[in-house]
Amino acid sequence: MRIEILNTGTELLLGNTLNTHGGWFGRQLFTMGLRVARQATVPDGDAIREAFVEMVDRADALIITGGLGPTSDDLTREIVAETLGIELVQDEHALRTLEAFFTLRDKPMVEANLKQAMVPVGADVLPNPNGTAPGLYLPPRINGRSRCAVFLLPGPPRELYPMFHEEVAPRLRALSGVEEIATVSELKFTGIGESDFHHSVDAELAAMEGLEYGYCARMGEVDLRLIGGEGAIVEARELVLARFGKYLISDDGSSMEATVIRLLREKGMKLSTAESCTGGLIANRLTNVPGSSEVFTHGWVTYANEAKNDQLGVPMEMIDAHGAVSEEVACAMADGALRESGADIAVSVTGIAGPGGGTEEKPVGTAWLGLAVKGGETVAQKIYHPRNRKDFKQSASQSALDLVKKTLR
Amino acid sequence: MRIEILNTGTELLLGNTLNTHGGWFGRQLFTMGLRVARQATVPDGDAIREAFVEMVDRADALIITGGLGPTSDDLTREIVAETLGIELVQDEHALRTLEAFFTLRDKPMVEANLKQAMVPVGADVLPNPNGTAPGLYLPPRINGRSRCAVFLLPGPPRELYPMFHEEVAPRLRALSGVEEIATVSELKFTGIGESDFHHSVDAELAAMEGLEYGYCARMGEVDLRLIGGEGAIVEARELVLARFGKYLISDDGSSMEATVIRLLREKGMKLSTAESCTGGLIANRLTNVPGSSEVFTHGWVTYANEAKNDQLGVPMEMIDAHGAVSEEVACAMADGALRESGADIAVSVTGIAGPGGGTEEKPVGTAWLGLAVKGGETVAQKIYHPRNRKDFKQSASQSALDLVKKTLR
Repeated sequence: MRIEILNTGTELLLGNTLNTHGGWFGRQLFTMGLRVARQATVPDGDAIREAFVEMVDRADALIITGGLGPTSDDLTREIVAETLGIELVQDEHALRTLEAFFTLRDKPMVEANLKQAMVPVGADVLPNPNGTAPGLYLPPRINGRSRCAVFLLPGPPRELYPMFHEEVAPRLRALSGVEEIATVSELKFTGIGESDFHHSVDAELAAMEGLEYGYCARMGEVDLRLIGGEGAIVEARELVLARFGKYLISDDGSSMEATVIRLLREKGMKLSTAESCTGGLIANRLTNVPGSSEVFTHGWVTYANEAKNDQLGVPMEMIDAHGAVSEEVACAMADGALRESGADIAVSVTGIAGPGGGTEEKPVGTAWLGLAVKGGETVAQKIYHPRNRKDFKQSASQSALDLVKKTLR
Repeated sequence: MRIEILNTGTELLLGNTLNTHGGWFGRQLFTMGLRVARQATVPDGDAIREAFVEMVDRADALIITGGLGPTSDDLTREIVAETLGIELVQDEHALRTLEAFFTLRDKPMVEANLKQAMVPVGADVLPNPNGTAPGLYLPPRINGRSRCAVFLLPGPPRELYPMFHEEVAPRLRALSGVEEIATVSELKFTGIGESDFHHSVDAELAAMEGLEYGYCARMGEVDLRLIGGEGAIVEARELVLARFGKYLISDDGSSMEATVIRLLREKGMKLSTAESCTGGLIANRLTNVPGSSEVFTHGWVTYANEAKNDQLGVPMEMIDAHGAVSEEVACAMADGALRESGADIAVSVTGIAGPGGGTEEKPVGTAWLGLAVKGGETVAQKIYHPRNRKDFKQSASQSALDLVKKTLR
């Protein structure tokens, strides 16, 4: 089944609003065993008509987003009905739903909203509990003219996403005849690159019957998504884990920080952080996880040498002798955080984020990680991520969390 | 001039890689006084040919990204040359540049890379200092067949962006005849919403001759971009600042955190942070700014009550009496951070990020900010951002930085 996506909205092409729909639809459809054959973005106005005429002739199913609002810019409904030669009539149920939406919010409904209750004859109204614009579904051959199924959906993600799952996905499944939903498995790795997968397992994965897969490379992370029958998934996971198991973050799609928090909770252990060059990013990532407050109690951002000294007890003589970016200081920071917080495990990072501050011996991108465990020996690890400032912070935070994860496992 | 964008790559439609090109090009072109008439994304393979044939007939300039690599999937060069009936020949200069790229990195150049030195007769080779794939420019009527100017550019942003600025923008400017580059002015605001602008200044901005403008709403921030002649820009800025000046973050496109760091440097003051619910996000944002180490020395993530007590000296009796999310604790945290760090100004946040922990009196989304200044009176401010966990953290960090910014101004 050939599926095309048409995103409408001048704002999407001015660079003001990032169009995330293309990738989002791709991911949803991939999971259902379907594919996007083409995605297009056009500004409001006549460009919608031009693109619609082309796409509706070519596709089996066309998903259009945006242009269902109450303003004069919102013309998708009218353009589609006119092009297909279908009359728009006021739908009583849609009108009552619209009125109820405003009543509930104690806001007046204006004249302009009335057009949101106009429905092409023979179309299904797709309820929108999260906004005023209902979606519309025009089945194939609705008026004997177009063999293409057309979905008109609202643009804002918080309205679009639930409507897709509730109303669009079941209809696409029925249209495509893909009865069985494939299993999806997402494995996250760190410490290796996408090219390592290409060289090592690509050919074998490609040869597996009934398996589809895709990579997503992020800073300090490669995600592998496997889709297929249960047998194929099991086989693929075995292959990949045999080859790259030691780099695994999680095999259920959990982020690095969520994995660390889960392991801490399982072991009943508490973590504290002592950050210099990552500047609070590690603490920020950990506290993005709901429930992190149970296992993460203390974090320091000791950006200045004085802070390392007065907060974590790192001797100034040590900093003078070895430099702030050194094995000794990383260990002393982790020791200090463990001692001050009373946690079971403490991780530290000290490095050179740049753009300034690099030397020949310690270039921008150099960092030392420290790890202290209650009753154990403190260890350090040198890393080198010569990247821009933000990417360096992200990579260094990933390495630090990976060190904690490995220790907990 | 009708400009279209064609992004190629199966990965862009699988949801693995977010296609940020559409918006990025829109923004660059908008700044140059140009517009994207249509953007399309297609998977690798025959879909590229199909889309290219349509677009090259319709557009005055077509920018194609991706598919210039060395693998068998990378067919853009071949498809374009074949469709336009132009021969591909090996370009000696391109070949030497390619060889030099590998020599510099001490890597072997493989046979597959050779095709990256193949150039359509009459095309310009666009140097790529950041990767192996040179770009290509096929001027209009290159072989008497197509009136469309065609740019073939590499997909990865770190290769694409510099090439666009160096090689594509000047050629587009020449083609479009837009001689004078319009002035661009970006104003950032916090504490008001996009709808406030719509109601208050939209009609007046729309009526100004020679002015184009657009909004971008982010979490806790609205950006207004003004483009036009110098006179129009001055007039528009005056209007907007008269109405909303007190919500201004910056009038030169600087982020909130960069603005705070700049103000601190100007005043020779040092800042420290004491974070509970924002979990290090404020420190993380500040340390994203190069040079922040000069003015930001100490940060605490006192997530647990014990941490507030043992690190910042917040009395446990105060926490018991008023709760951790209270005016008293916010002030005591800021006071403690000021005292411990020796900084000139300290900001604190304590609140309920959720999903758990809310009460009727203090629902999820409630937070208190504290601000202490050396030799001054410590103040507190209550905020309420009932959002999901990450959005709450972002909004609360924005409010805290805004409080610092206002104090510094």
